Amino acid sequence: MPRTIIGVMGPGESATKLDISIAYEMGKKIGENGWALLTGGRNAGVMHAATLGAKELGGLTIGILPTADKKGMSPYLDIPIITDMGNARNNINILSSKIIVVCGISPGTSSEVSLAIKAKKHIILLNQPPESKSYFKFLAPDLVHPAALPDDAVELIRKYV
Amino acid sequence: MPRTIIGVMGPGESATKLDISIAYEMGKKIGENGWALLTGGRNAGVMHAATLGAKELGGLTIGILPTADKKGMSPYLDIPIITDMGNARNNINILSSKIIVVCGISPGTSSEVSLAIKAKKHIILLNQPPESKSYFKFLAPDLVHPAALPDDAVELIRKYV
Amino acid sequence: MPRTIIGVMGPGESATKLDISIAYEMGKKIGENGWALLTGGRNAGVMHAATLGAKELGGLTIGILPTADKKGMSPYLDIPIITDMGNARNNINILSSKIIVVCGISPGTSSEVSLAIKAKKHIILLNQPPESKSYFKFLAPDLVHPAALPDDAVELIRKYV
Amino acid sequence: MPRTIIGVMGPGESATKLDISIAYEMGKKIGENGWALLTGGRNAGVMHAATLGAKELGGLTIGILPTADKKGMSPYLDIPIITDMGNARNNINILSSKIIVVCGISPGTSSEVSLAIKAKKHIILLNQPPESKSYFKFLAPDLVHPAALPDDAVELIRKYV
Repeated sequence: MPRTIIGVMGPGESATKLDISIAYEMGKKIGENGWALLTGGRNAGVMHAATLGAKELGGLTIGILPTADKKGMSPYLDIPIITDMGNARNNINILSSKIIVVCGISPGTSSEVSLAIKAKKHIILLNQPPESKSYFKFLAPDLVHPAALPDDAVELIRKYV
Repeated sequence: MPRTIIGVMGPGESATKLDISIAYEMGKKIGENGWALLTGGRNAGVMHAATLGAKELGGLTIGILPTADKKGMSPYLDIPIITDMGNARNNINILSSKIIVVCGISPGTSSEVSLAIKAKKHIILLNQPPESKSYFKFLAPDLVHPAALPDDAVELIRKYV
Repeated sequence: MPRTIIGVMGPGESATKLDISIAYEMGKKIGENGWALLTGGRNAGVMHAATLGAKELGGLTIGILPTADKKGMSPYLDIPIITDMGNARNNINILSSKIIVVCGISPGTSSEVSLAIKAKKHIILLNQPPESKSYFKFLAPDLVHPAALPDDAVELIRKYV
Repeated sequence: MPRTIIGVMGPGESATKLDISIAYEMGKKIGENGWALLTGGRNAGVMHAATLGAKELGGLTIGILPTADKKGMSPYLDIPIITDMGNARNNINILSSKIIVVCGISPGTSSEVSLAIKAKKHIILLNQPPESKSYFKFLAPDLVHPAALPDDAVELIRKYV
């Protein structure tokens, strides 16, 4: 039986402090619940914070790296998958995750939410500006679930997993 | 000297009649101006209409197909590039185009606009609902250019090419 | 600290009985030694046999699937990575593995050995016909290590890991 | 009607003088015959020589670049396709070509021949050492066609196109 994989996506270098602290909290809750965490794997922003959080609570951490080697990867990854595919790897992040949790927004993250909608995955939005919330709700009202707190995200994960 | 490649992106099966007629018009203008046209290559919606338009005016038409063979490709393609990469090919569409013109919106198209912003390309938006216009303007005010008509798009292409 | 990942590559549907029994044995040894196993993930041939072997000895099993969903995956995978990239995913198999063990040969496997040489990875060849052994030795004498038995492969893994 | 695309594959920086002069000749013959040429697009070895040859005879030249931009591309390309996928783009080279002509051998080229066999394409081998000739013949006797000269390759292209 494969592990249940929860993806956490969000900005890298452009992540806000709030994005990062929510991602860290989210990672902890994913680890605590025995789900495997999947991120874009880099040592930056939401990817890194979620990976650290999950690792601290004993979670299994998977990173789908855009690079050709392990340079720049989060040191808290258990399973680095090396794609050498740049942002084309975003589609792998989405297809490999059962549910996607999004902390904050950036162009790369936006491509991931869009691809998740295309793949008909449930997406939980944390810490979004009104523009992205209303846009993604417009694109896919049944798949996009804004949430206020990591605890709300956990409830939604339990519901849709 | 490589040809100047203009990408036209937009919905496939879910394209509206207006998306399609604008894409067809846009394709004609691209052909007429001697630019090469690049689309997602499928025989559907905006991809197909733009390809037909460009071909009618003697343009060179390139399609980046998501499939493993030529099944389902637009018959008006000169250069079918076969990726077998599904939606991960969207990043190739963007990286290979100098400027991206978008007709209508869909989850796949949304991933392309997002990746174009990430790659710092100029994007011209035609026939958009207010939600996508204000969202993409919010993400990248300097790169995203809403336009009313294909003729306005041509002006913007000339400016940024 | 990321897990040490050992890739096992080989034919799918065209695997011989000997390829399969060697792959199963190899998977067991990888599980027993606490390495993580990575394969192409499908429910066929060498991929499936190695995954089963590793799982029986408590190993962690990763599969890089060519498909767009989990259909056709080995049921003994812990971590299915879904690429929707067909054979382009072979490069991910290689880049993500520290050392590659090959059981038998096929066109797909041949592309993986070639890409592994390109990426300067050590490759251990089991159960090869003379043609592939002498060809790959010719391409990369220092990276290609023919071995007779899974136990010899384990020695080589310990040496190069 | 799409153009007939002939792929020419071979070593980059490690190409021999003979590989390069054969590739240049092959490119000329492809241009002369009105076929479109497809290569890996870089400004090196067989890719560059074939592109130059085809361009000199008025051919249309397509390059599937491994990089994220046009840096390092052959200046004789008409259509640079930018993949940012490293060697995973080799599968696109193969799938997009009707027939593959190979000049010389290297690990990357070897992955392309292997993927071409997997995709059941006809492959014409020029300037091969005995090891690769007998290996690829062993893998796929009906698809692999060793040839002595570019003129023989043209005959084989005409037969299988």
